[in-house]
Amino acid sequence: MKQKYQSLVHQTIPVSKAIGWDIESLDIHYIKAHIKLAPNINIHGTGFAGSIYAAAMATGWTLLKCWYEENHYSAELVAAEANIQYLAPVTEDFYCLATLDKSEPQYRKLQERLSQPKSCGYQLPVKVECNEKVCAILTIQFVFKCA
Amino acid sequence: MKQKYQSLVHQTIPVSKAIGWDIESLDIHYIKAHIKLAPNINIHGTGFAGSIYAAAMATGWTLLKCWYEENHYSAELVAAEANIQYLAPVTEDFYCLATLDKSEPQYRKLQERLSQPKSCGYQLPVKVECNEKVCAILTIQFVFKCA
Repeated sequence: MKQKYQSLVHQTIPVSKAIGWDIESLDIHYIKAHIKLAPNINIHGTGFAGSIYAAAMATGWTLLKCWYEENHYSAELVAAEANIQYLAPVTEDFYCLATLDKSEPQYRKLQERLSQPKSCGYQLPVKVECNEKVCAILTIQFVFKCA
Repeated sequence: MKQKYQSLVHQTIPVSKAIGWDIESLDIHYIKAHIKLAPNINIHGTGFAGSIYAAAMATGWTLLKCWYEENHYSAELVAAEANIQYLAPVTEDFYCLATLDKSEPQYRKLQERLSQPKSCGYQLPVKVECNEKVCAILTIQFVFKCA
């Protein structure tokens, strides 16, 4: 599964390759991506805010894409809005992590709506970690669009 | 001025080159950047949300960097938080535009604080336009850090 989605993302979102984004671990409810610092530095030699965001967005999108495809739902997945908080500088290669929490009301609602099928929103947090410290949190408002 | 900051950004933020970001017009209160779609596509062939954000962030950062350097203020400029709304797909090469509004209270406050010098926040909106349509709006909370 990891290799399938790694190839899909690298082939369809070329920026994911340019920023050195790779999947380290993936199942339908969890993703951990590894990102190289070198292509993503800013003027301070730390992670560029734009690269950190792009890496986290690719990570969140990949998890939801994997989840709905492996569940055989049919939808188009887009980001409607997002908020990112930068908490500490990224000083080394870093990780982006996201989990689909099955206990959340929005998870059950999403399953119900996609089964009909009807469009549905989903808010996903993605953590950015470097050296075991949370450096940023991206919260993405996704929309699953059904025809 | 355009060439000076174009070179600075390309040399210190390598992702700006990878995404085909170039300054079209720059003075200390206004910036317009041009971005190629090709390196920034997603699975739908439109602009990847992460690339759009990175281009807008580079644009906003460059305007404030230019403004404070040309005004001979001394500070470190970082992004603390940002929010982006995606309003329409980016289907062609696109533009990022930002203006420093001298009539805003936060502008006068920033001048006063940096003159002392003391750290100060500044909220900057960056518009993303494609084919004369606003496709996204990024609102960045910057911080000018004074030692």
